[in-house]
Amino acid sequence: MTKVHTDYLWFNTSERQEFIRITDDIARIVSASGVMDGMVLVSAMHITAAVYVNDWEDGLIHDFQEWLEKLAPAGKSYRHHLTGEDNADAHLKRTLMGHQVIVPITNGKLDLGPWEQVFYAEFDGRRKKRVVVKVMGV
Amino acid sequence: MTKVHTDYLWFNTSERQEFIRITDDIARIVSASGVMDGMVLVSAMHITAAVYVNDWEDGLIHDFQEWLEKLAPAGKSYRHHLTGEDNADAHLKRTLMGHQVIVPITNGKLDLGPWEQVFYAEFDGRRKKRVVVKVMGV
Amino acid sequence: MTKVHTDYLWFNTSERQEFIRITDDIARIVSASGVMDGMVLVSAMHITAAVYVNDWEDGLIHDFQEWLEKLAPAGKSYRHHLTGEDNADAHLKRTLMGHQVIVPITNGKLDLGPWEQVFYAEFDGRRKKRVVVKVMGV
Repeated sequence: MTKVHTDYLWFNTSERQEFIRITDDIARIVSASGVMDGMVLVSAMHITAAVYVNDWEDGLIHDFQEWLEKLAPAGKSYRHHLTGEDNADAHLKRTLMGHQVIVPITNGKLDLGPWEQVFYAEFDGRRKKRVVVKVMGV
Repeated sequence: MTKVHTDYLWFNTSERQEFIRITDDIARIVSASGVMDGMVLVSAMHITAAVYVNDWEDGLIHDFQEWLEKLAPAGKSYRHHLTGEDNADAHLKRTLMGHQVIVPITNGKLDLGPWEQVFYAEFDGRRKKRVVVKVMGV
Repeated sequence: MTKVHTDYLWFNTSERQEFIRITDDIARIVSASGVMDGMVLVSAMHITAAVYVNDWEDGLIHDFQEWLEKLAPAGKSYRHHLTGEDNADAHLKRTLMGHQVIVPITNGKLDLGPWEQVFYAEFDGRRKKRVVVKVMGV
């Protein structure tokens, strides 16, 4: 029988930009769902945050952050800022990283490769934000 | 019992590049599907168009368009143009924005954050194009 | 009744960077699954490879590769390289292209537009790598 299970992760980072590993949180939710074979969607519910899969290595995370700053710099005169906002760069950065991933579930576990880790990337933090986790399968 | 429901959205923009909000169209299709808990895939069927989730704010849409033009400019001598095409930049722009999203469905509604809106982004319009919408759940 | 079917594709490219069309492999796995209506997730299990949907045209593939080299160049002094690795650019390139796609399945076939093709993009090859293919539907 098909099971669908929903949960949410909350974040309130102390820094404007923070990358947080959430693989274990997703694994825990999948375990609670009872789904043995299927998929789990992990999706940022705020439009200045990303969810992505890559390496758990501080140097690479630093490289990602420098690279994003180069391709989508803060502090430019974005049109979006006429609304009073100051975070247009965060919308662009999150677009480059992607805002959601699907992780396959096999034998009740996240079916990830040896170096795959799921990350939440915050680009406009210091406020409460959510990620939705939707598990579906048998 | 698992339900799977399929629909298509058609576009034929008057401009070469246009960003169109489709959240309400997706919500309508999900409602018609009868799925109360699950996911909906929204995916561009043409390779010079994108589907993405971000803010419904004209200034930010302008910023996205300027930014895409900088990172993936039109009018360069792309190798793809030797085939007679002139839209290589549109292929690159759609890659930056992403060509599909999955929206979770909870209690029969799109489970979106407060500012999340689904957009169709056309980068080579003035012709008929489709988006596939596949709803799956219980 | 819901069916979930899992398979893996293995790659071991002779070049460091290679783009390989895998549409037919995905179609074959979907056919074997017996799923008539649903979705198939195609996801790179290694963090220096991408899976994306775009055109099967050599000129455009060349354009993608030149563009990725410009936006995420090899040979720079990335912090990740202090670990002994030399592939930070491959992590960035795969992020631009995306590491997974979902293809809808309708009437037992991949529900793709006229020019859509699924590609595996290797950015740090010459070693064994996997892609997971998870089919789900009815």
